[in-house]
Amino acid sequence: MTVDQSPSHNLVLGTFRCLIADLVQQYGGGHPGGAMGMAAMGIALWKYSMRYSPNNPDFFNRDRIVLSNGHTCLFQYVFLHLTGYKHMTMEQLKTYHSTRVDSFCPGHPEIEHPGIELTTGPLGQGIANCVGLAIASKNLASLYNRPDIAVVDNTIYCIVGDACLQEGVALEAISLAGHLGLDNLVVLYDNNEITFDGSVDLTNTEDVNKKMEASNWAVLEVEDGSDNVDGIVDAISKARDIKKPVFINIHTVIGIGALNEGQSSAHGAALGVDNVAQLKRKWGMDPEKHFNVPDQVYQFFAECPARGEQYEAEWNATVAKYTEKYPDAAAEFKRRVAGKLPLDWKSYIPKEYPAEPTPTRKSSGLVMSPLAKAVDTFFNGSADLSPSTFVGWSGKAEFQNPAVQPKAGDKGSYSGRYLHYGIREHGMAAIAAGISAYNKGTYIPVISTFLMFYLYAAPAVRMAALQELQMVCVATHDSIGTGEDGPTHQPIALPAFFRALPNTLFVRPADSEETAGAWEAAVNFTHGPSVISLSRQSLPQLKGLTDRAKVSLGAYVVKPVSQPDLQLFASGSEVHLALEAAEKLETAGIKTRVVSFPSTNLFEKQSSEYKAQILLRGKIPSVIVETYAVNGWERYATAGYSMKTFGKSLPGKDVLEYFGFSANEVATKVEKYYRSVTKESMWTFQDLN
Amino acid sequence: MTVDQSPSHNLVLGTFRCLIADLVQQYGGGHPGGAMGMAAMGIALWKYSMRYSPNNPDFFNRDRIVLSNGHTCLFQYVFLHLTGYKHMTMEQLKTYHSTRVDSFCPGHPEIEHPGIELTTGPLGQGIANCVGLAIASKNLASLYNRPDIAVVDNTIYCIVGDACLQEGVALEAISLAGHLGLDNLVVLYDNNEITFDGSVDLTNTEDVNKKMEASNWAVLEVEDGSDNVDGIVDAISKARDIKKPVFINIHTVIGIGALNEGQSSAHGAALGVDNVAQLKRKWGMDPEKHFNVPDQVYQFFAECPARGEQYEAEWNATVAKYTEKYPDAAAEFKRRVAGKLPLDWKSYIPKEYPAEPTPTRKSSGLVMSPLAKAVDTFFNGSADLSPSTFVGWSGKAEFQNPAVQPKAGDKGSYSGRYLHYGIREHGMAAIAAGISAYNKGTYIPVISTFLMFYLYAAPAVRMAALQELQMVCVATHDSIGTGEDGPTHQPIALPAFFRALPNTLFVRPADSEETAGAWEAAVNFTHGPSVISLSRQSLPQLKGLTDRAKVSLGAYVVKPVSQPDLQLFASGSEVHLALEAAEKLETAGIKTRVVSFPSTNLFEKQSSEYKAQILLRGKIPSVIVETYAVNGWERYATAGYSMKTFGKSLPGKDVLEYFGFSANEVATKVEKYYRSVTKESMWTFQDLN
Repeated sequence: MTVDQSPSHNLVLGTFRCLIADLVQQYGGGHPGGAMGMAAMGIALWKYSMRYSPNNPDFFNRDRIVLSNGHTCLFQYVFLHLTGYKHMTMEQLKTYHSTRVDSFCPGHPEIEHPGIELTTGPLGQGIANCVGLAIASKNLASLYNRPDIAVVDNTIYCIVGDACLQEGVALEAISLAGHLGLDNLVVLYDNNEITFDGSVDLTNTEDVNKKMEASNWAVLEVEDGSDNVDGIVDAISKARDIKKPVFINIHTVIGIGALNEGQSSAHGAALGVDNVAQLKRKWGMDPEKHFNVPDQVYQFFAECPARGEQYEAEWNATVAKYTEKYPDAAAEFKRRVAGKLPLDWKSYIPKEYPAEPTPTRKSSGLVMSPLAKAVDTFFNGSADLSPSTFVGWSGKAEFQNPAVQPKAGDKGSYSGRYLHYGIREHGMAAIAAGISAYNKGTYIPVISTFLMFYLYAAPAVRMAALQELQMVCVATHDSIGTGEDGPTHQPIALPAFFRALPNTLFVRPADSEETAGAWEAAVNFTHGPSVISLSRQSLPQLKGLTDRAKVSLGAYVVKPVSQPDLQLFASGSEVHLALEAAEKLETAGIKTRVVSFPSTNLFEKQSSEYKAQILLRGKIPSVIVETYAVNGWERYATAGYSMKTFGKSLPGKDVLEYFGFSANEVATKVEKYYRSVTKESMWTFQDLN
Repeated sequence: MTVDQSPSHNLVLGTFRCLIADLVQQYGGGHPGGAMGMAAMGIALWKYSMRYSPNNPDFFNRDRIVLSNGHTCLFQYVFLHLTGYKHMTMEQLKTYHSTRVDSFCPGHPEIEHPGIELTTGPLGQGIANCVGLAIASKNLASLYNRPDIAVVDNTIYCIVGDACLQEGVALEAISLAGHLGLDNLVVLYDNNEITFDGSVDLTNTEDVNKKMEASNWAVLEVEDGSDNVDGIVDAISKARDIKKPVFINIHTVIGIGALNEGQSSAHGAALGVDNVAQLKRKWGMDPEKHFNVPDQVYQFFAECPARGEQYEAEWNATVAKYTEKYPDAAAEFKRRVAGKLPLDWKSYIPKEYPAEPTPTRKSSGLVMSPLAKAVDTFFNGSADLSPSTFVGWSGKAEFQNPAVQPKAGDKGSYSGRYLHYGIREHGMAAIAAGISAYNKGTYIPVISTFLMFYLYAAPAVRMAALQELQMVCVATHDSIGTGEDGPTHQPIALPAFFRALPNTLFVRPADSEETAGAWEAAVNFTHGPSVISLSRQSLPQLKGLTDRAKVSLGAYVVKPVSQPDLQLFASGSEVHLALEAAEKLETAGIKTRVVSFPSTNLFEKQSSEYKAQILLRGKIPSVIVETYAVNGWERYATAGYSMKTFGKSLPGKDVLEYFGFSANEVATKVEKYYRSVTKESMWTFQDLN
């Protein structure tokens, strides 16, 4: 693409930088330096390189851009303004760091605002998300494009700073992107050599280009990247022809033009009034004028909305042609674009299961495999635990670079919907969030590892929750019941986190029937991540007691008794234990009700009447029996039979017994509690074991 | 070092592999393949390379070895047995995967057992821990060695598999280790090209040697590493002369000799009876004999205990000479070796603070700086938030490779005790755990970032808790009060995790006085990590109300009233808010007591009498006021004024008001609750906002 040199890029660069400086100065806070240094990148992207439509920010085949260095958000906000995104008025720009609750300009980019693809800020997430966007785009293109018609052919752009390149989650995603050969991914590295502590070489002296090349990325370099719009445009143009993900190392100066340019102090604080004034003089602007955008600058970007509409029109015409020529594929494609599941999705979930004891991780496979096989909305994978987590299906194809033939795996293609994420749990979750964010409902990514290792993935799961992105986290080998692998692999505190996390569904089914209910709940939970906690060990089928439909209530009675003296709450692998303990308590003359409690998140959504019926607060003692830390259950129960230490390496059955999770032990301790508790003492939550 | 060729290494290799196969076969579970493939590495290390003393596993100047691929633990257990660690009898080896609760052979290595440096298993942690061990060793050497006498000169060995090299935490630590030039660190890469899902190239096709070189590591390679003991010995010997961390890429065959050698199935399951039998025949051993170690093999390692004692004797002589020549340094060194703080450590903590409102993150700096400056047990640092977290001190020297001069930082030395960890939160915590594990009490690592980003670090903090390793996590910018950075930076659910995590101290002080108490508690908490949750924003000094000595109680009354009608619980930045709300409630005629509740973990350790005095359960309504998810507080309170959503980007004061955290709003809602609540309805926990 040829670069238009009128008006001079210098005017745009200068205007942009002074505007950034003003916007940070007005309330004396924010991040000016990075955005200022990246000005030329912005011109190269929004003026010369990206396909997007300001009048329709959600245009399906748009190029995506994500600021992995989210603190430079003003960079994006200002370009959205200049290129004519209607919501991003100058008045809105000025809400940055203001007290306005209706601001489109929060301190980091937020997905709910037009033109923002993903919420970023926690470093390293954005680039991993972009790997997900690139995978989604490759997969859709491979599934739906035809030799003569491409309905999906966009590019994913990502801007990273030094920080993102130090974060493990980014390094995991970079490695996988290189392996997969995602040539629709272009990363622009804002290489300003500065971090908050000082210069990058305080803590990092690696050869980043060599490292990227070692990871199967192509590397391009732009030396004078603060100003050299043409050079950046040229590099981006080259990048699109390279059959690898491309890393453009762009050397910039943080806070360029400020008195403290090139210094850490330009990163995260207002520059100061005098500094801003001299900056404006340096760029030939009036220091008395604030938020000043000359008409020529608006003119420079004036074509963008119409150009965007033209992109849309072209794409619509392409889709029309495609519809005519490939009506079946088009119908399917349009369903994906609309983000809808087939209406009959639930029919794929089996109604019957083996009668014998089954680990819920296997039940999960039985429930989900036919659904995922039939509905290509599902995009599944594992962090190297495929044989253990049962998220594949017979005949599944792997999402792989078609150019690569693994030594001990199937040759895949980009149309495959099963991804070996590698031993990269954090990257996996962040990539899945990106797949989900590509277009709401187009994908339901299903990821899997042991529950314990979702702690590695937790920052990305949290970001999915914050963004209300659907994904399903299959979490096997839950609880101490996982056995011999020992305390390193036995989660104790982690469920307390997921249960406390907003917009998150943590659900722990007791048997195959409840696992079906858990999956139905997860598929229905479209506005955040679900974590399905599943056992390694076999669990009895509680036929006639458990009910998939009631999982959505969060808690329900699996063993009713009239006028109970006591009740036991339990989830997952402890439900059958609670039922067995209840039998023993009955023998001791204590009428014991049992409540299966697969999800506190779902339970909290029920009516206060229903909750009261279940909880019987203040009426009878209620004991939660669960192999996790009890924290949070005190809301529902008056006593807990739970874990207060880390676990132990023993065979699963033995570790459960070691910590007293046997029907006898539970019944004995609960009976003792029941015999001694009074209406008064019931107020004090008791730990029974 | 010359390699002793009698008896043939083959006999040792074969014996070792068959023993591994038997140990996994006996209970039909475990990880045989990796250990079998690594046999030659083990001989190279334990026979020819490492300095250690089987009769004194804790010999201070020993070389350390850590299996980052912890599932290969049998590898280490068997070498501990062969080299004469007394506890590791053959009977003990056979407890692997057994029901024996007194086993020294859990499914992953555990720090509490002799000869094990660190608990590993969650992948990537071990190598990051090793970077910490190497830092500790370099720092001690730099502080205490003299040109003529070296009291610390050991080497840190780490074995990694493919998995560890994919994990972000490892990649972060590798990058930092290269930057720091830790030439006392030798990583042996068990390159068997296999992971659980299949071949590594399913998910990773990078050039690992090039990547390590790009990160400032030296790379050596051993092609036939399953058998070539001499080649590995030679590489290790070379490695010790290279002034960089060294990565030895050792090509091995997983499960070598088994019918499924070189395959994923050899990784994590017993080989099968027939397979083990043929393995033994292949190695010329009797398939009917199990757990068979020929005398020649024991003889091969027989020298190890005496050799170890000699190492010890030499070191003791060195220390004696050192003591004579450098008595002051020796006294200090011995205190460090003994893991003791100076008796007067508490005297360094100031008694007085500024009267004006102060952010607790600044208070933390005021408390800790003089202590850390005076006592070199403290080893502090930040994940690139040094200007924000206040864990430095005036005149601090940086821990840096003396060969490197950063552009915008001090030239450091290995004697410095301030480390720029980079934007590597997870790596930081894992490295700190390694520093702490070097020798208990020799170091108290202090790390720092925003509270929200401890979610990145959480897997390593959890591992520190599991291992009862002391470290202090300074967690600033807590709560929504952090302001404009918005919901990405505002923790909601994370405190629920740390409060539920065993062996962990989460403490959230309300002002400078409580911050002093929090630090005293953290320094006294020697058997796990402390997380000190600190405000970005200024908080009033609650002079005369708060009391550092009472922080250790976890909760105490800051506003007593006689015969209270109601009480408010609060922590950190909400304590002053609760006090202000209480004033308003008093005006409304409601006698309101206020409890500062800095730590639920500490509170749980108090007597039931004390707890009852604080909680007044069932007597009066108690409302917890806190800007986090309420989960867990239901144990203490009858209602919550808390966060049920993610936060918002607004100035700190405004975001607090937006979510109703103003004295007026709190008082209004609490009064309404108080007016309507009954003894009966108090049973149902209420969310007031």
